[in-house]
Amino acid sequence: MSYDTNNVFAKILRGEIPSFKVHEDEHTLCFMDIMPQVDGHALVIPKQPAETLFELSDDSAQACMRTVRQVGEAMKKALGVEGIVLMQLNGTAAGQTVPHFHIHVIPGSIADLRKPHATAMGDMDKIKGLAERIKAAL
Amino acid sequence: MSYDTNNVFAKILRGEIPSFKVHEDEHTLCFMDIMPQVDGHALVIPKQPAETLFELSDDSAQACMRTVRQVGEAMKKALGVEGIVLMQLNGTAAGQTVPHFHIHVIPGSIADLRKPHATAMGDMDKIKGLAERIKAAL
Repeated sequence: MSYDTNNVFAKILRGEIPSFKVHEDEHTLCFMDIMPQVDGHALVIPKQPAETLFELSDDSAQACMRTVRQVGEAMKKALGVEGIVLMQLNGTAAGQTVPHFHIHVIPGSIADLRKPHATAMGDMDKIKGLAERIKAAL
Repeated sequence: MSYDTNNVFAKILRGEIPSFKVHEDEHTLCFMDIMPQVDGHALVIPKQPAETLFELSDDSAQACMRTVRQVGEAMKKALGVEGIVLMQLNGTAAGQTVPHFHIHVIPGSIADLRKPHATAMGDMDKIKGLAERIKAAL
């Protein structure tokens, strides 16, 4: 499978389109999902150009999980939630819409997610405010 | 948070109760979910006694992701699916029911999961057969 360098997350990584960043380090980036399923919905991606888990290196996988853990802790503190749901889709057949590996980090309960993935844009000011709260708790 | 050594996955790890094993290595175990949401639904757990992602070591996280990748590849081959969904719930507030870290590895689409987690036992012979097919493709 060849990696599409023009996918939207690749553009975010290159700074060609804006995002509400929560965390960035050498190997990963965390930013807000702008079509959130619940308030605070964020995404963690590797800098490695990998479409799915099946192209992801062990090092990238470890780095992503470390960032997810840090962001999840910050969400619990910042948003006062006790549950953190991770979701990760591999392949269009699974429902993956952007062909760059990403882990959904969702504050709350799996019960909140039993509706189709949001297809509408969220409120940008609200999302920006949530990003800042999570970032401040990191 | 203190780890409950009598949770059902701890008992599976100690061999005190049976499971349909797909893969085992030094750091992880993969076995079938006996209340599957779809055919082939498996779980990957670390041997580390960790309740959630927030107690999981970097090494365990990496080992789990490696096993998930191997099992996912095997599912695609064995079951002829193209999509693999990962789901991981942290805390009862998220919907976590067994207090030992586990990653759901689910062949198919997120669209198949928009119903409550199965509360009924699956068909054991069928699950055993699926485990054997996935194992054979590892």
